Amino acid sequence: MPRREITGFSNPAVKALRALREKKHRKAAGKFLAEGLRLLTDARECGRLPEVLVMATRREAHPLLDALEADVLANGGEVLEMAEDVLAKVTGKDNPQAVAGVFAEFDTSLVNLDRSAAKIWLVAQALRDPGNLGTMLRTGDAVGAGGLILIDACADPFSVEAVRASMGAVFTQRIVQARWEEFLPWLRGGPGQLVAASLREAVPYRGAPYQAPCFIMVGNESRGLPEDYELTCDLRVTMPMKGRADSLNAAVAGAVLAYEVLDVLSD
Amino acid sequence: MPRREITGFSNPAVKALRALREKKHRKAAGKFLAEGLRLLTDARECGRLPEVLVMATRREAHPLLDALEADVLANGGEVLEMAEDVLAKVTGKDNPQAVAGVFAEFDTSLVNLDRSAAKIWLVAQALRDPGNLGTMLRTGDAVGAGGLILIDACADPFSVEAVRASMGAVFTQRIVQARWEEFLPWLRGGPGQLVAASLREAVPYRGAPYQAPCFIMVGNESRGLPEDYELTCDLRVTMPMKGRADSLNAAVAGAVLAYEVLDVLSD
Repeated sequence: MPRREITGFSNPAVKALRALREKKHRKAAGKFLAEGLRLLTDARECGRLPEVLVMATRREAHPLLDALEADVLANGGEVLEMAEDVLAKVTGKDNPQAVAGVFAEFDTSLVNLDRSAAKIWLVAQALRDPGNLGTMLRTGDAVGAGGLILIDACADPFSVEAVRASMGAVFTQRIVQARWEEFLPWLRGGPGQLVAASLREAVPYRGAPYQAPCFIMVGNESRGLPEDYELTCDLRVTMPMKGRADSLNAAVAGAVLAYEVLDVLSD
Repeated sequence: MPRREITGFSNPAVKALRALREKKHRKAAGKFLAEGLRLLTDARECGRLPEVLVMATRREAHPLLDALEADVLANGGEVLEMAEDVLAKVTGKDNPQAVAGVFAEFDTSLVNLDRSAAKIWLVAQALRDPGNLGTMLRTGDAVGAGGLILIDACADPFSVEAVRASMGAVFTQRIVQARWEEFLPWLRGGPGQLVAASLREAVPYRGAPYQAPCFIMVGNESRGLPEDYELTCDLRVTMPMKGRADSLNAAVAGAVLAYEVLDVLSD
């Protein structure tokens, strides 16, 4: 049944869709939710189609939505139409134009990562805020990074919040999840410079000797990087701190560094 | 009564404290809430003491908390002690070490702003996310900016979320709230270069001819800056966008620009 109309709140499909807002259910299903026509169109243009497309039975026609629907059906996917009040239950929004897609989670294993695919890679260690994580994906897309490597226990990159904050970059950036004990041997198994902002034995971040592939690492929002991770870096750089604070927001620090690396590596 | 113990959930003080989580009650009271010993210590070191300090009756001693308490009392402020479960009701956290302070809102009028006090000022237009707003304050502190000027309908800089994300910068940065129709004549009444990231008739952001005092403006998270605001800028700059996206997170864009301006103005 490629196209179905869902009429009741108690339909199992509604329950399954709502469940994807919770990490344990996402992991069990191996699927995640992306919301909004813009995000779904970004995904489509990246060659990523949802397995299930969800929208209101009564909605205004939109050429991008028509194109999406046709592609999902042609690809063997399913289209679920539902009454506005049922849709609101799924999306948590009272918006009859809301659309959502269910995607299979991507492969996030380290072994399949091709480090030569890009000059810049972002690395986040124990990043807890899904908004920061999505913002780092978005920044990675902007600087032409290859992807975001998540070390240790980070927020889930497939949460609705992270996907939203990525502004579609979740579909363009490679996402890898690995423990430090896996990442470090992998990194040392080929070319790659590990860089972090630091307060110890560091050189100014402007014009520092960055080398591709450059792995820019930021740490947890409250604790920063563990000391041994920092000492393992090939290059530690400092950024000016003119005020009282001794650190920047993690996503901001990563972005300022990434734009500097981009400039140095473009010369 | 400089020191009081609050025993019941129904105490009017508890209700008044909880109400400060909502904007309308903050505005009516002219007060805001800051939470956590670190934030309150930052405030104290900036010469800002809470009018009311709130903490658990049974708590572990901490020298910074003792110092804070003494200063609040010496300054004529009030210390409220309450049972852990009552405190949890106020802070929304189940943490017996939680402390919170009630501060009088700061003057945010444009007329009292001294533009010569800093080389860099951040300007946000219709910024809706309190986390972004707090992050901009934190970035402003880091680059030695004078403050953050909020144009049109922005998130409330005195919300618990914005104060938390500012990591104390809410106490170091001047915060101004103004409509565009007020800001523009004020800006043109003295020296000041208005700069924004833009896609039209713009020069590369690296090494652009920034001049102090430099006002770096970012726009709303989804719509960006209104066209006429952008055209009014003295300098429009572009940042590399190597991927699919055509924009960065607002706080990230402001930070990357601010660090570039800092570098150019330091030469």
